[in-house]
Amino acid sequence: MITPIRWEADRLLLLDQTLLPVEERVREHTRWRDVAESIRSLVVRGAPAIGCAAAFGVALAARESRARDGETLLADLEEAFKGLAATRPTAVNLFRALDRMRAVASAHQALPVPALQLRLLGEAQAILEEDLAANHALGAHGADLVPEGARILTHCNAGALATAGYGTAVGVIRAAHERGKVALVWVDETRPVMQGSRLTAWEMVKEGIPHKLISDVAAGFVMKRGEVDLVVTGADRIAANGDTANKIGTYSVAVLARHHGVPFYVAAPFSTIDASVPSGAAIPIEERDASEVRGTAGRQTAPAESPVYNPAFDVTPAELITSIITERGIFRPPYSFT
Amino acid sequence: MITPIRWEADRLLLLDQTLLPVEERVREHTRWRDVAESIRSLVVRGAPAIGCAAAFGVALAARESRARDGETLLADLEEAFKGLAATRPTAVNLFRALDRMRAVASAHQALPVPALQLRLLGEAQAILEEDLAANHALGAHGADLVPEGARILTHCNAGALATAGYGTAVGVIRAAHERGKVALVWVDETRPVMQGSRLTAWEMVKEGIPHKLISDVAAGFVMKRGEVDLVVTGADRIAANGDTANKIGTYSVAVLARHHGVPFYVAAPFSTIDASVPSGAAIPIEERDASEVRGTAGRQTAPAESPVYNPAFDVTPAELITSIITERGIFRPPYSFT
Repeated sequence: MITPIRWEADRLLLLDQTLLPVEERVREHTRWRDVAESIRSLVVRGAPAIGCAAAFGVALAARESRARDGETLLADLEEAFKGLAATRPTAVNLFRALDRMRAVASAHQALPVPALQLRLLGEAQAILEEDLAANHALGAHGADLVPEGARILTHCNAGALATAGYGTAVGVIRAAHERGKVALVWVDETRPVMQGSRLTAWEMVKEGIPHKLISDVAAGFVMKRGEVDLVVTGADRIAANGDTANKIGTYSVAVLARHHGVPFYVAAPFSTIDASVPSGAAIPIEERDASEVRGTAGRQTAPAESPVYNPAFDVTPAELITSIITERGIFRPPYSFT
Repeated sequence: MITPIRWEADRLLLLDQTLLPVEERVREHTRWRDVAESIRSLVVRGAPAIGCAAAFGVALAARESRARDGETLLADLEEAFKGLAATRPTAVNLFRALDRMRAVASAHQALPVPALQLRLLGEAQAILEEDLAANHALGAHGADLVPEGARILTHCNAGALATAGYGTAVGVIRAAHERGKVALVWVDETRPVMQGSRLTAWEMVKEGIPHKLISDVAAGFVMKRGEVDLVVTGADRIAANGDTANKIGTYSVAVLARHHGVPFYVAAPFSTIDASVPSGAAIPIEERDASEVRGTAGRQTAPAESPVYNPAFDVTPAELITSIITERGIFRPPYSFT
């Protein structure tokens, strides 16, 4: 079992995803600022996992405070809420987790400080456990959609590493594999950060799921050869109309799937749906540093003088999405989540 | 001016494209086997450039021979013809160049050996010069198709480095840039070997052509934002019906272009058209080593245990190609090249 995030005694342990698959190293965090830095630098990544880590970040901030009463503690937490919220803009789970931690702090501010600290830690743990349960539930729903002998293509890593464990898109693959339905998983390597080759392929090896790694550019050719039965990806934020922000390249895969008549599924916990955002046009898209594209694993592969456009996400319009798989069931177009 | 291939005194000089853009190093070749190895290891790559290099490889083989008469020399050359032909299967230019060198050797076998050796060297030089002239001519034709203020996307490197100089797809871009028509070139990085980021971006920097480097996965998103006016790529082999083999990922770009109503052009010398191949289904597709996908620039980015599918090329069906630009003019569907 892959455990990317766990609390132990007085600290948050995160499996350092920047070092996989070459090295499995766990980083310890006792300060919220270190958690924020680990989110920013992709030690922990994946929308649900970011939410869980940020919740524990707030719990750490509460323990770091020297406040003697709840009101002062709440004031102390403000910096952590702002700092953690400023790490990454696209995934909605981050903001949901912070809102939830804030609501708990606010509702229980009359408690003695040690009790309030413990309550916040308990809430972070609850967020983690709920995410894990949601993954298992949506995995089971999704597996119903997978035909026998399926050849499944996935992009990026929406696996155990991207969540509290088990995974969303990879949760569907895991559940289908447990039922003996998976013939092959095509793993897109997912430039520029290589979450497919570094993380999803690593999970496939760990679980013994048959897979083949391909460059992102080969996805269309593999579909053209008739070797993909369905695509499933995760989501960083789903708008009220079903438009879905996910890792850059997801949109291209969705267009290719449509061109080849291949079903394209999104798998995500229901909390990924952001009803406050009417369509994908309103989802902020994070742009990351040019160095991610100018090189890989620390080696330069482009001229230092070349300008770079490096969006970390794109938006797939609802009309290209066959179904959205959540723990509450499977949604089909036209999407309505109320 | 970028000169990837040139003959000097008694040796073939190739700019080592595996080291770009970090280092500009020229490799000297005095033996045909070293030329074959340089083709295989991508020191020289790009369909027209491979053809030119192979022709000089035959000229070197003729100089290496100790034959005292033309007939013996021709027998000696057989090993070089076979060895050079076995380097890379997809680009037709390689086989065309070898056929042409064989025909010259055969036609002139009555010559004294030194004269025959010189004749073969002259033929290789002619192939190089004809390719350069074809690039300039097709570049001018292609530039006619480029609108003012164009934002052009290209995949892989069909530039000076892929040819005798100037380039095919990049030749069109160069010619359009000379006419002041190019607002921006989107350079796909082109995994797994990074010919876009390592080579095309380097050419853009050298020429001062405005460009932005993107991960391949961002091409669809950039089109969706309405920021691409046309796509132009090179070709490794064009079937009689217009189906075009080119660098892996070209097919995906063509599907994306069609989805977004963006014209998709192929630019190649007329010799890239292989009338003996009725459709793309008959074009052999080279598969390269898994290590190209399991890492970049020598750094591991995937589990060693993960199986890999690494086709170096794909085939874009003729119906997705708006026009094919050659030195003999512009061809439009339904394609007929006779």
